[in-house]
Amino acid sequence: MSEATHFQCQVKDGIAHVSLDRPERKNPLTFESYAELRDWFRALPYRDDVDVVVFGPNGGNFSSGGDVHDIIGPLTRMNMKELLAFTRMTGDLVKAMLGCGTPVIAAVQGVCAGAGAIISMAADLRIATPDAKVAFLFNRVGLAGCDMGACAILPRIIGQGRAAELLYLGRSLSAEEGHAWGYFNKVVEAEDLEAEASALARRIADGPGFANMMTKTMLAQEWSMSLEQAIEAEAQAQAICMQGNDFKRAYEAFVAKQRPVFEGD
Amino acid sequence: MSEATHFQCQVKDGIAHVSLDRPERKNPLTFESYAELRDWFRALPYRDDVDVVVFGPNGGNFSSGGDVHDIIGPLTRMNMKELLAFTRMTGDLVKAMLGCGTPVIAAVQGVCAGAGAIISMAADLRIATPDAKVAFLFNRVGLAGCDMGACAILPRIIGQGRAAELLYLGRSLSAEEGHAWGYFNKVVEAEDLEAEASALARRIADGPGFANMMTKTMLAQEWSMSLEQAIEAEAQAQAICMQGNDFKRAYEAFVAKQRPVFEGD
Amino acid sequence: MSEATHFQCQVKDGIAHVSLDRPERKNPLTFESYAELRDWFRALPYRDDVDVVVFGPNGGNFSSGGDVHDIIGPLTRMNMKELLAFTRMTGDLVKAMLGCGTPVIAAVQGVCAGAGAIISMAADLRIATPDAKVAFLFNRVGLAGCDMGACAILPRIIGQGRAAELLYLGRSLSAEEGHAWGYFNKVVEAEDLEAEASALARRIADGPGFANMMTKTMLAQEWSMSLEQAIEAEAQAQAICMQGNDFKRAYEAFVAKQRPVFEGD
Repeated sequence: MSEATHFQCQVKDGIAHVSLDRPERKNPLTFESYAELRDWFRALPYRDDVDVVVFGPNGGNFSSGGDVHDIIGPLTRMNMKELLAFTRMTGDLVKAMLGCGTPVIAAVQGVCAGAGAIISMAADLRIATPDAKVAFLFNRVGLAGCDMGACAILPRIIGQGRAAELLYLGRSLSAEEGHAWGYFNKVVEAEDLEAEASALARRIADGPGFANMMTKTMLAQEWSMSLEQAIEAEAQAQAICMQGNDFKRAYEAFVAKQRPVFEGD
Repeated sequence: MSEATHFQCQVKDGIAHVSLDRPERKNPLTFESYAELRDWFRALPYRDDVDVVVFGPNGGNFSSGGDVHDIIGPLTRMNMKELLAFTRMTGDLVKAMLGCGTPVIAAVQGVCAGAGAIISMAADLRIATPDAKVAFLFNRVGLAGCDMGACAILPRIIGQGRAAELLYLGRSLSAEEGHAWGYFNKVVEAEDLEAEASALARRIADGPGFANMMTKTMLAQEWSMSLEQAIEAEAQAQAICMQGNDFKRAYEAFVAKQRPVFEGD
Repeated sequence: MSEATHFQCQVKDGIAHVSLDRPERKNPLTFESYAELRDWFRALPYRDDVDVVVFGPNGGNFSSGGDVHDIIGPLTRMNMKELLAFTRMTGDLVKAMLGCGTPVIAAVQGVCAGAGAIISMAADLRIATPDAKVAFLFNRVGLAGCDMGACAILPRIIGQGRAAELLYLGRSLSAEEGHAWGYFNKVVEAEDLEAEASALARRIADGPGFANMMTKTMLAQEWSMSLEQAIEAEAQAQAICMQGNDFKRAYEAFVAKQRPVFEGD
């Protein structure tokens, strides 16, 4: 039972398994799924039952991006007010993913194009199958590479020159190249993807949840700070975590020569 | 026929082929070529006949940088007002390259040193021949690595630790290492360099020119924005592109199962 | 004879050899060594006898980080005022390393964990032995990855996705992986580490000291500047260096076909 209408979503043991829908069309995004995803990620900071999100494929593909008929056609007929409302909604999805306080793992298989590529980019960690093809293909549909944060985020993941190449050419990034470039953290066989992504999610979910939330928050928060500002911001953020119970649990477990069991507070 | 006096420049079919001059001295920069290059790149946003710039070698080398006799000698005798006028002029060349709205491909062969290395760094994409040697050699002439933006730009291309190594040692970066580090997008044989650079330029020039201008603009514009600011800036920039005709052309071509022909508006 | 009480420090021929102490416990940090290191790096800008710092191992390990008994235990019992005083002191060590004006080479062997990993990250260059294990293990002790600047600095060295992996998992980075990712500039055999680190330090120390100070300053200073600001800042910084004597020495040596001998002014 999905807890969403326009995408697939099951939460189990602290891990939310999310994927886009309509595998027969390689899971395109629609106005409705954009909006519902944005709202779902925006609600995460207020939920206690989700420690990690796995954003995965459906039917062998991740996502073909904005649907040509459902999205691109209507966009060509909109006025500027309507267009800006749309581009802000898509950007709000990335803002919501970055600001949700919950680590997101993208499990990428097959086609991962356009807004699908952006969703994988906005995740914290990325696993791919060998057939994954990530295409920031905006310039192939007559648009700019600056979509949903790509000109800011992609260069910080793979470097400015490689990001420029992908954005000017719209060509696919393969799993192998993406792994060598630091886009993918790991490449696994297709039959292992679900298990590997779940195991990675489990490992993070078993960690200190409040502290993981702070790690995620600060990775985004320090993006454009000076070094002095970033170091002061971390002094404050880490001092907050040092008053958390998971820090005490780790210390007590160490003294008792045991493995700490974190509870996320 | 060069359209410039102090460097080589031919524009053909939307592609400007630029190179430095005096191959017998490995194409050093002079006060005159700095100034003319700066002015040439500054004029690009107002020209409609240049879609892509290929900045290439001449006689087997890219550039030996600021000429020892023509530039370094005079600099050692200048007062601070004159020195600052010079360093601002060289910085203005990089600003002009970054702000010209036109993708720049550096085709690097042989010696690429000092200000020559900076020019390759300020390009969007870089292709190298196997004998390319890129040397940010400022510290070997008694200067700092902070020349024409190197301490800001180089770390974003190859990472902070590798950039620090090149800037503190002034050692050459080889084609192979540069490719592994993401400095070079591709390494090709010397006899293929011109054809490969032209083919890459053609591919980008055949893309949506207005949108490519916006990609280039935003890659620089978002450099020090927060993530929230960058995503809002892209929402605006992409909405502008969605009112462009190339976006409509791509959609109509897709519906007609044809390949889009972009016209750059 | 160490010139410090709570860590090892010898200065010879312009190179300071620093290491942490208590090799039988893998050189943990203590409240006292944090404070003394911070003060020692803070004094560097006013010293003329140190051109380069080599921060090395002791007894086969770099550092195990904050001592569990001496530091973590007491922290679990502190109030917020005391905790913030501690996290600011540790952050001040990184600020002092970044602001000391002297290139720092980390020579990493064996265990390099927690605050030890941070010290290696805050260095300018890093050499490793094959058995080096760098672990940003904060989340394994119930804390966040945002410690002493890690969420700002680590992504700029190895990329955002790889940094996120290390910070969420707390897993070790090996020498081989760290080299491939640009964390380590070089990997050398254990028996060669001291000689290689000293040779690298010598090479930098023999360079133009004032200009190297400016390179280090600007690498930090331009961290969050816009491109336009960074290029203007470099125009000013390099103009200052062009009035330095080492620039004249290099020019005169070149004209005389000799190798320049820099004196650091």
